Amino acid sequence: MEPFASTGMKYDGQTFQILDQTLLPHREYWLDCDKVETLVELIKRLAVRGAPAIGVSAAILLGLLAERGRSPEDLEEDALTLRQARPTAVNLMNNVDRLRRKIKDPEYPQSVVAEAEACYREDVRQSEEIAKLGAELIEPGARILTYCNTGGLATAGSGTAFAVIARAHELKENIFVWVCETRPLLQGGRLTAWECLQHRINHRIICDGSSAMLMKNGEVDCIVVGSDRIARNGDFANKIGTYALAVSARYHNVPFYVAAPCTTIDPDCQDGTAIPVEERAGREVKGAGFIDGFRYWAPEDSEAFNPAFDVTPADLVSGWILDSGVYYPGDIGIGNWWEGLAQE
Amino acid sequence: MEPFASTGMKYDGQTFQILDQTLLPHREYWLDCDKVETLVELIKRLAVRGAPAIGVSAAILLGLLAERGRSPEDLEEDALTLRQARPTAVNLMNNVDRLRRKIKDPEYPQSVVAEAEACYREDVRQSEEIAKLGAELIEPGARILTYCNTGGLATAGSGTAFAVIARAHELKENIFVWVCETRPLLQGGRLTAWECLQHRINHRIICDGSSAMLMKNGEVDCIVVGSDRIARNGDFANKIGTYALAVSARYHNVPFYVAAPCTTIDPDCQDGTAIPVEERAGREVKGAGFIDGFRYWAPEDSEAFNPAFDVTPADLVSGWILDSGVYYPGDIGIGNWWEGLAQE
Repeated sequence: MEPFASTGMKYDGQTFQILDQTLLPHREYWLDCDKVETLVELIKRLAVRGAPAIGVSAAILLGLLAERGRSPEDLEEDALTLRQARPTAVNLMNNVDRLRRKIKDPEYPQSVVAEAEACYREDVRQSEEIAKLGAELIEPGARILTYCNTGGLATAGSGTAFAVIARAHELKENIFVWVCETRPLLQGGRLTAWECLQHRINHRIICDGSSAMLMKNGEVDCIVVGSDRIARNGDFANKIGTYALAVSARYHNVPFYVAAPCTTIDPDCQDGTAIPVEERAGREVKGAGFIDGFRYWAPEDSEAFNPAFDVTPADLVSGWILDSGVYYPGDIGIGNWWEGLAQE
Repeated sequence: MEPFASTGMKYDGQTFQILDQTLLPHREYWLDCDKVETLVELIKRLAVRGAPAIGVSAAILLGLLAERGRSPEDLEEDALTLRQARPTAVNLMNNVDRLRRKIKDPEYPQSVVAEAEACYREDVRQSEEIAKLGAELIEPGARILTYCNTGGLATAGSGTAFAVIARAHELKENIFVWVCETRPLLQGGRLTAWECLQHRINHRIICDGSSAMLMKNGEVDCIVVGSDRIARNGDFANKIGTYALAVSARYHNVPFYVAAPCTTIDPDCQDGTAIPVEERAGREVKGAGFIDGFRYWAPEDSEAFNPAFDVTPADLVSGWILDSGVYYPGDIGIGNWWEGLAQE
């Protein structure tokens, strides 16, 4: 495996390491990851997160294990274990399945190593394309609202929705970002704010419930979010709370874009109803995690409901910014946009 | 002053005490309050909160100070200081102004004491009326979504929106409550959940961003919220995030009610644009307060925007549950609903 380094993952030729995103922005702590059980646990507790990033992390680890002498049978088992670490983001399944198809290749293990490297490189390239295509949609002076974290931490490259924002900031004057904190796990308030500081992008953190009022007051020019899975008809899953933004955007006529690599599309989902939504532990809603542990603010006897994602129907989307191009509502369904991508 | 006790305030004939709501649900700690400076600080840091409750707390303290020999001139000054403690909830101004009109009365100080007692008693009675009228709108088995805290902690009586829910729970089978946690200060997740436990009402806490998805999935039968100020035309201010709920409710055809006593109406505001919205310190958005102090999760270098309220236009409201009756959109404006109330 070739060495590489992204914002949240790195391999120096010896050790694959993952930045523990649960400790950001307060502490940059890198964890060694050389076992499937380790990576599954890191994915489940969101030490590594972001649909493209978890897909690439799985590919990298499987490539390394193959290179280090794991038998094809054992690697297939590893792949199936990793595939189930989280249920909603399809990039994980897509990447694992790409590698599984190479396990039976006569060139094993090199076939798997090469495919893992390809997953990484393609993810980097896809971020670049998304950034370039998306930035063209952003006007100078735009006040962009975004949700969750979709930057360098969420992919192997520069990101999806956040990459669009960062590229627009490089190319145009006065880009401003409303960073939704993104309850319950605060990937916006913790991670996107941190990435905005790193890129020196002018931003303010807001509570998720403030966004509708900002739209009403004309303070949001567009919304760009990422996705964990896109169905054939353009419906998409993303962090819980995304759908509420889409409804408000429609009500206030604010353009609402979703940015994702093609690896986020699931051809097996005809529409959003087929996307499984992970339900996580209620305690995540009843408090917050800090460097020194989790703290409750809610009564421990109260139950909480904690779906990790919601599904936004295609009819609320103004455009899909994919690495293969920007698609508009007219392109979806009748235009067989999905088949166009599949031929790619 | 007659002794009294509500969920969050009490006077035993000697000491006026306020329950520190910032420490709930983990600790029930009562603070003595015998000075205007003390109460202003308690109001500002939300140790006492809820539009009716802060109005009553101001009335009680002014009554006590009058009884204890404060001169009319000094009490007028005290009243003006208290009046400015928070800018949005009009109950504070309304109650203070009621008492100010009694300062020049020949019966001073008894005139002020009697008016303070009346403010308290009327608030209790108004809660009762709101509960009774509102509960009639709730069907058995209803899944009610509510926001912020509007129960016994927020008034001198049983509350506003929460009183409706609690009364429906007493009278009807299977009432269930979706408790929005209500960022940034978590009055839902901390206080409403605590009140639900006390009333043994079946409930689950959710992140504010989950509510639109629940409405889409048909899991919300109605929404009931409180208010901090209602304009003549029915527009109303309430905790930031209320407007987002109202937009989602309209999009999903979910009935959306606001419950408040008449003291929440401001005849001087023709519409919502005249309601001043308090902007609070950004740090409230960048972390959370716990028993042992405030903790940040966001980067300290990031700024945050923290409006405490938003304004929901009357055209998104299905009904106004006031102590004087339930008003529907047809009653507002053309029906001179406000004049009807003023004659009361």
